[in-house]
Amino acid sequence: MMKIINLDHISSKPLLPEVKSAMIDAINADLANPSSQHKSGELAAEKLDNARKAVAALLNCDTPKEIFFTSGGTESVNHAIKGVALANAGKGHHIVTSNIEHNAVIRSIRRLKSMDYKITSVGVDGSGRVNPQEVADAINDETILVSIMHSNNETGTIQPIEEIGRICREKKVIFHSDAVDSVGVVPIDVKKLNVDLLSFAANNFYGPTGVGGLYIRRGTRVFPLLDGGVQEHNKRAGAENLIGIIGMGTAADQARLHLDEWQAHYHRLRNKLTRELPEYIDAYIINTHAEHSLPNMLSISIQYIEGESVMLMLDDDDIAVSTRSACATGSLRASHVLLSLGLSHADAQGTLVLSVGLTNTEEDITTFLKSLKTVVTTLRDISPLYQKKRQAVS
Amino acid sequence: MMKIINLDHISSKPLLPEVKSAMIDAINADLANPSSQHKSGELAAEKLDNARKAVAALLNCDTPKEIFFTSGGTESVNHAIKGVALANAGKGHHIVTSNIEHNAVIRSIRRLKSMDYKITSVGVDGSGRVNPQEVADAINDETILVSIMHSNNETGTIQPIEEIGRICREKKVIFHSDAVDSVGVVPIDVKKLNVDLLSFAANNFYGPTGVGGLYIRRGTRVFPLLDGGVQEHNKRAGAENLIGIIGMGTAADQARLHLDEWQAHYHRLRNKLTRELPEYIDAYIINTHAEHSLPNMLSISIQYIEGESVMLMLDDDDIAVSTRSACATGSLRASHVLLSLGLSHADAQGTLVLSVGLTNTEEDITTFLKSLKTVVTTLRDISPLYQKKRQAVS
Repeated sequence: MMKIINLDHISSKPLLPEVKSAMIDAINADLANPSSQHKSGELAAEKLDNARKAVAALLNCDTPKEIFFTSGGTESVNHAIKGVALANAGKGHHIVTSNIEHNAVIRSIRRLKSMDYKITSVGVDGSGRVNPQEVADAINDETILVSIMHSNNETGTIQPIEEIGRICREKKVIFHSDAVDSVGVVPIDVKKLNVDLLSFAANNFYGPTGVGGLYIRRGTRVFPLLDGGVQEHNKRAGAENLIGIIGMGTAADQARLHLDEWQAHYHRLRNKLTRELPEYIDAYIINTHAEHSLPNMLSISIQYIEGESVMLMLDDDDIAVSTRSACATGSLRASHVLLSLGLSHADAQGTLVLSVGLTNTEEDITTFLKSLKTVVTTLRDISPLYQKKRQAVS
Repeated sequence: MMKIINLDHISSKPLLPEVKSAMIDAINADLANPSSQHKSGELAAEKLDNARKAVAALLNCDTPKEIFFTSGGTESVNHAIKGVALANAGKGHHIVTSNIEHNAVIRSIRRLKSMDYKITSVGVDGSGRVNPQEVADAINDETILVSIMHSNNETGTIQPIEEIGRICREKKVIFHSDAVDSVGVVPIDVKKLNVDLLSFAANNFYGPTGVGGLYIRRGTRVFPLLDGGVQEHNKRAGAENLIGIIGMGTAADQARLHLDEWQAHYHRLRNKLTRELPEYIDAYIINTHAEHSLPNMLSISIQYIEGESVMLMLDDDDIAVSTRSACATGSLRASHVLLSLGLSHADAQGTLVLSVGLTNTEEDITTFLKSLKTVVTTLRDISPLYQKKRQAVS
């Protein structure tokens, strides 16, 4: 099989070699149930503890007890939003969020809306960022939760979480941030960010999929999403995905140790991409914030063509890119994130989401750019929109 | 390290060698996101499909589309109960369950109770079984869900699910069964059982922990528990725990192929245990149904002593047993299951839950019985209750 150039790391990042080894060791170790009453469970309990410490260190928690393991970012987000809403229903029924959240946030909140919660959703400016003052203005006496994502999963643009957190703390409103695409890519310090809850997923830092966690600041009132046994200090029931959690712990250790070099690598590749892109194609819009963004992501809207067609033709060239979140595969509607940025439907349809990873090289970027040029030229040659525009110009 | 004799398989079963291989292969295969738009995701999607087919075959589903992967039995149970309750709230707010359910069911239902759902909980007879007629009598016009476990996690006693299912179908009430301890131990046919939803977990058939599934019969009205992306036909959002799911698929294949011999092995060991037990100790109660029970489990209440002390002393002899569900570790209250059976608090405190697995041998049983005799004799020698009883008799 020919090597596939993966520029869709936002969908899936490969496991680090250290993560693979740790998971394989765990598989071969015949670990017992960490909640067992007898000594067979001790090693498992110790491994679970170590993973919790590793994740807590990555996020600079006060204590590992603030970390709760989940089955991934989606469960964490559902737990945070529904758990806070239900636990604080006595205080009020109003939630503030933004127009550019991930479907996990949008649909969790929509579920609450059907249960008589009121929602205020703030917009973003042309650069894709929420204005903290708008959040402050949206909060009222009934507000029990603000949920604003740390970085956007389609553009990589980072939100002013620290300021929003400061506002929430002043107004005594619980603040959750969906940081699924940020943790392990940029430094995340839960104390500095002033968040009460923060959702994350292991795959974003080269751990396994289907494993994640929720940071819950001590004293935050939140109900479990999964009711049952006493695991996770009674906040998340169910036998632990021990092999996956061990993988996440190892990935968290690696991310903490190597975050600077990972970031430098991402920046180098993305800089090359943005710098050289104009040499290969014209008429495109960059949707990712130049300064406040994840260094591994770039969203571009290529005008007069369909991103879907570009993606498929690049796939034929063994280059993997995405047109949007893999979680929304199958949906034909234009991205709500791009429309919120002010893009037209037509421009939004021409979007490619590029996300680099640790194994990408500068050569990969060059190969991609060359392929992209051919693909874009081919597609524009048959695009009525593009022909019309050329005639108008000439 | 000395070999530990594991008679606590209900807490944790070791992975089958085939499961280990499949999971290690999956780790090394660098699988992409099965929802990826490009071809890198195809292999992952195929592996996900195969796992779904394997599980569907084990349960005799009409189609693999009736299987939804979850993070384990607890999520499945929460999804089934809360999902049905919320989706059918327009029809009514009444739920029927039993007094001997697992905490995942009890606490999910308790959560709904706080949201104005009404609950009727039916008891069990002295043998630990629900009377289907009592379920029929409990159903009223407002009833939207009946949830009765297939087998009990502390005694192994199997409930008359087929009959209860027939009643629910007649009365057009949705029926969920928590079959976490049954699937992979005894034959489970979702069609024969007349269930609409059935919860299960991979570890019960020697797959990984933290992976499970929910059978949802086509046409059953149920909301997702995890809202977000479009995975699992829009019924369970979140990137899949692919490595774990591949492990579960392999375990399901093995369970389907070898269920007869597994059951015969369990029966042989448990028969030896029940047959020889009177040669080693006296004054005990067997809580497990002689006929309708999982063949791998035996619950005994040893009179005049504390099960907790027996468990700890056996642990010193490198024999792992349990006094109750690992999910309830830390709880000092007497088991609600045993009290429902009519046991006194004192007798309930003397309970051992023994569960055998594929790697146990007849020799393990003999070693256990010898140790148990010593432990019970030692403990009774210092038990004021036992001394009093002896004086009364003599």
